[in-house]
Amino acid sequence: MNTRKTLSVALADRSYDIIVGHNLLRDAGQLIDPIITHEPVIVVTDDNVAGHHLGTLDLALQSAGIASTVITLPAGENTKDYDGFHNLVTSILDIGPERRSTLIALGGGVIGDITGFAASVILRGIDFIQIPTTLLAQVDSSVGGKTGINTQHGKNLVGSFYQPRLVLADTGTLDTLPRRELLAGYAEVVKYGLLGDKAFFEWLEKNADALIDGDETLRQQSVITSCRTKANIVSRDEKETGDRALLNLGHTFGHALEAETGFGEKLLHGEAVAIGIMMAFDLSTQIGLCPVEDTTRVRAHFKSVGLPVQPTDISGQAWSSTALLGHMAQDKKVRDGKITFILTRGIGNAFITSDVKISDVEALLDKAIAA
Amino acid sequence: MNTRKTLSVALADRSYDIIVGHNLLRDAGQLIDPIITHEPVIVVTDDNVAGHHLGTLDLALQSAGIASTVITLPAGENTKDYDGFHNLVTSILDIGPERRSTLIALGGGVIGDITGFAASVILRGIDFIQIPTTLLAQVDSSVGGKTGINTQHGKNLVGSFYQPRLVLADTGTLDTLPRRELLAGYAEVVKYGLLGDKAFFEWLEKNADALIDGDETLRQQSVITSCRTKANIVSRDEKETGDRALLNLGHTFGHALEAETGFGEKLLHGEAVAIGIMMAFDLSTQIGLCPVEDTTRVRAHFKSVGLPVQPTDISGQAWSSTALLGHMAQDKKVRDGKITFILTRGIGNAFITSDVKISDVEALLDKAIAA
Repeated sequence: MNTRKTLSVALADRSYDIIVGHNLLRDAGQLIDPIITHEPVIVVTDDNVAGHHLGTLDLALQSAGIASTVITLPAGENTKDYDGFHNLVTSILDIGPERRSTLIALGGGVIGDITGFAASVILRGIDFIQIPTTLLAQVDSSVGGKTGINTQHGKNLVGSFYQPRLVLADTGTLDTLPRRELLAGYAEVVKYGLLGDKAFFEWLEKNADALIDGDETLRQQSVITSCRTKANIVSRDEKETGDRALLNLGHTFGHALEAETGFGEKLLHGEAVAIGIMMAFDLSTQIGLCPVEDTTRVRAHFKSVGLPVQPTDISGQAWSSTALLGHMAQDKKVRDGKITFILTRGIGNAFITSDVKISDVEALLDKAIAA
Repeated sequence: MNTRKTLSVALADRSYDIIVGHNLLRDAGQLIDPIITHEPVIVVTDDNVAGHHLGTLDLALQSAGIASTVITLPAGENTKDYDGFHNLVTSILDIGPERRSTLIALGGGVIGDITGFAASVILRGIDFIQIPTTLLAQVDSSVGGKTGINTQHGKNLVGSFYQPRLVLADTGTLDTLPRRELLAGYAEVVKYGLLGDKAFFEWLEKNADALIDGDETLRQQSVITSCRTKANIVSRDEKETGDRALLNLGHTFGHALEAETGFGEKLLHGEAVAIGIMMAFDLSTQIGLCPVEDTTRVRAHFKSVGLPVQPTDISGQAWSSTALLGHMAQDKKVRDGKITFILTRGIGNAFITSDVKISDVEALLDKAIAA
């Protein structure tokens, strides 16, 4: 129940620890203290997370004698646009940071992404610490140093590779998470099983209900397994020139779906990933790569926990395969005009390919939006 | 006259060459071709430089069979603000770049800084090439990977360390430079002599007039010596944790002067550096570090070529030492509230210190603005 596990992301002089466990927020002061070289630390959070967790963090910093100042942003993906970024950077510069100042990102993926990007460019780079408070941020966005903001052209098209100095994943914070957000994060957990760890997927099939309902030990185990997989991949391929792209399973389709729904509440990132993963499996099955049984099994698992599995599961949204394809062509993974896909030969057996016929993708999209 | 010299900035997998010489713009196509992996290349320039040099570059790219597209920004330091950056990034994303796309910065420091910063964050980093067309950019801003934009809080407070793939310093482009801009760049050339190379300063004393008047061989030699010094320092200390800060000789004062004049035409960056260098020498002499003869000799040299040497040389500007000190306290080099200064024990003997009494700085500022 109260175990703590420390994982390491090995990146030479930019290596850092991910600590996973309970009550990390309460003990954040002493955990952070060794890497603070200048005060005040600047905590960036959103008005939703602040209500749940800022008091605990404040107290923890105070009791460790660390002076801090807080910037609270509006909750939601819209905060992560160009104006939101400009406002955040201005607020931070108003405080008068030095090169040895430290930002702390307290929140979900939006707060982590925008704070990390700000840290990477203010005074050409200051330290930052991730304290992810959503399942999605704990298993994915807080680890690996991808930062960024959304532009009118798409999601995370502007950003940087910039590693945090420390990640504190307090699984206790997940208790305050709305079920819908927890499920969205769970889609990213399932991704780790699907891309290369069939045993983990089978473990999830067995334990998903209890995990989602609140079993602390199961949650910790799932976060640890997810972070360990991600840490290993990132250590091998920080800048995504090779197999880091496997982590994008479901994301090329998912980003296109999010772009169409406006990156908002209508379709959460993790929900888009769940649908995107199903589209990747369906496409893999359609072109004869993946046994239909595996695709059916993944779909059944997502459905069993209550995740959407196709675009038409999102109510009140009209879809166009031309528009979706247009977004996919603007993806960061496009190379020589060819879209990179993460496809699969079955559960636990994903691979990277640019060798997909557009006509096959169109057929898949047409089928998916008609379903 | 037509020699070419290739210098190398040694930074492991981010190493690159600086080529200095004549007619590099004419031959840019074949020089660039080996490092282009995706077309079109995107040329970023300003409306002033475009008139002088874009035609030559266009022809060079065409004759090498390299497809290109051009983005032309308004000339001047104001282009380098937040809105200018947003507009540039949007224009680049409109073109639909891929991760292997390449930006080419054709222009002075403003174009190089803003284009480099855009390259560092678009799709989390794409390649860029510097083709500096001012003396200041050739000897300083195009080399070493400092990118950035100005904010309301100060100069280059937002940016990144991001190295170009290649620098082409065509000294022929200096022929089209207004004398005032050439002189501003010359201040940075002198800086290399003053910070650690007395023999180079003495060479400049002898050759400044002919160099400024247009002697191509002397210009090439001065650019090569300057770039070699900078390349060596950057290779040792890319992120300015140590002696790279020596390159900031005159810059802490200079940035404060620029902030007061609004980063505009009233006071060019290089002019601010010349005045800032004199303030650093005066302060060093005032506190007993630098022989007054050296300070007098540097002042005489700047005056002899027509550079300003004190704030009051800038007409129509009222100065306040409190305001200047306020800007200096916001400098990127501030550490634990202490401003880092580059002071000197004489010509060719600069050093870094945070151990300067504010009262001494105030006395210096009061004297300087009363002069």
